[in-house]
Amino acid sequence: MSLDVEALAREVIAQLAVPAAPPFPKASDAPPATPRRESPRSDLRLYLDHTILRPDATHAALDAHCDEALEHGFWSVCVASRNVAYVRERLGGSGVRVCSVIGFPHGDASATAKAAEAARAVADGADELDVVIAIGALKEGDHRAVYDDLRGVVHAADGKPVKVILETALLDEREKVVGCVLSKAAGAAFVKTSTGYAKGGATVEDIALMRRVVGPELGVKASGGIRDAATSDAMIAAGATRLGASSSIAIVTGGRGQSTY
Amino acid sequence: MSLDVEALAREVIAQLAVPAAPPFPKASDAPPATPRRESPRSDLRLYLDHTILRPDATHAALDAHCDEALEHGFWSVCVASRNVAYVRERLGGSGVRVCSVIGFPHGDASATAKAAEAARAVADGADELDVVIAIGALKEGDHRAVYDDLRGVVHAADGKPVKVILETALLDEREKVVGCVLSKAAGAAFVKTSTGYAKGGATVEDIALMRRVVGPELGVKASGGIRDAATSDAMIAAGATRLGASSSIAIVTGGRGQSTY
Repeated sequence: MSLDVEALAREVIAQLAVPAAPPFPKASDAPPATPRRESPRSDLRLYLDHTILRPDATHAALDAHCDEALEHGFWSVCVASRNVAYVRERLGGSGVRVCSVIGFPHGDASATAKAAEAARAVADGADELDVVIAIGALKEGDHRAVYDDLRGVVHAADGKPVKVILETALLDEREKVVGCVLSKAAGAAFVKTSTGYAKGGATVEDIALMRRVVGPELGVKASGGIRDAATSDAMIAAGATRLGASSSIAIVTGGRGQSTY
Repeated sequence: MSLDVEALAREVIAQLAVPAAPPFPKASDAPPATPRRESPRSDLRLYLDHTILRPDATHAALDAHCDEALEHGFWSVCVASRNVAYVRERLGGSGVRVCSVIGFPHGDASATAKAAEAARAVADGADELDVVIAIGALKEGDHRAVYDDLRGVVHAADGKPVKVILETALLDEREKVVGCVLSKAAGAAFVKTSTGYAKGGATVEDIALMRRVVGPELGVKASGGIRDAATSDAMIAAGATRLGASSSIAIVTGGRGQSTY
């Protein structure tokens, strides 16, 4: 309730003895900032990472998903790292980007594994990387371990934007703030709420908190349980600049999507 | 129902053009075969991989888990790869082994990522590796991709036993058989039913099927939803030679454990 967010952010940075600004060069090929929407639902498609992360996804399912992204012009298709090369080829030069998750969904793979996964995803054609933060290390207050883990992925990303998934459903307010501060310090381009595989997803309150902590320079991605336009609008109003959803078509056509696994 | 398991196994091996026997040297330091139990519940502790895989596990939770394994003399402690070094040091020279999951729980990280995670886990002190099979590739019938993915992990394991998690809840009978055949061909030491994060866990029917396909040379590990001695006994009677559980203490003391996340 009475958490002093700014004081906590300063304390974390001072303790870590790293610059508050990203230590890595800005991505030369970073996508332009997602456009601010003039009116509700205009260009909502450009906010959407069209997401297919079920572990049993086949090429046929990925094909259908890519076709949807091409038809509607979504920002990206978001897939597991083993599917990056396939989806990259399928999307060709369409302008629809490829986003790969890293250390997904638990975030507790070794830093070595996450960095190797990131490097390979970029080599396979990923334009953006969504990595799950080291949740256990964050919860036990090992800021250095969290930072080093993320820094390894940002470094391996070689200039591609990295989004850090906090898995907010497993965190208290203080941990959410610290996660945002460490993500920004490590050079992330975005902070993101959820994997979609924990007990809860994005909330308006969490998006507002994350936006407040990272400031205007970073993106904020709302994900997990976003299945209609009204929810999408609420997340954007609270500060989200990207949405992750498998129900992207329902969102842009005014319907309501289903939960998937 | 009328699936000809032996014919299917021969077909998969012929198609793949690999030897049916493991192509990698037997582990020089492989643990002795898990003892056959003389009577129910005797030495049940030696069947148990005492498992803590919740993504928010802290050092305090890992400490408590290791203490339980030391007190009861379980076969191993099974953790995420980022926790291998910590748990290895905590267990010291006790004889309780360290088991690391790889590509967990979705199995859809790139082969590069899985091999890097395996190599690092072994370097950090893992004695055994439990890798999730590439479920999507298995479902679309890309046997070569499944085999190559597993082979990379077995190679990186450098002689340490590898268990292949099929995630049976997401597979049909044919896919379960093919998954077992490819695991054995790739040099796995065990096949294993479940991650504990899908919609279902081990069943007696699946254990019997897996044992039939892999024969007596490989281990079969039952995991997912095993929370009492009666279930454990049923799995062992059906052919399981290892059990994965977070409720290990309840199992060896005759109680009933709770689901965790």
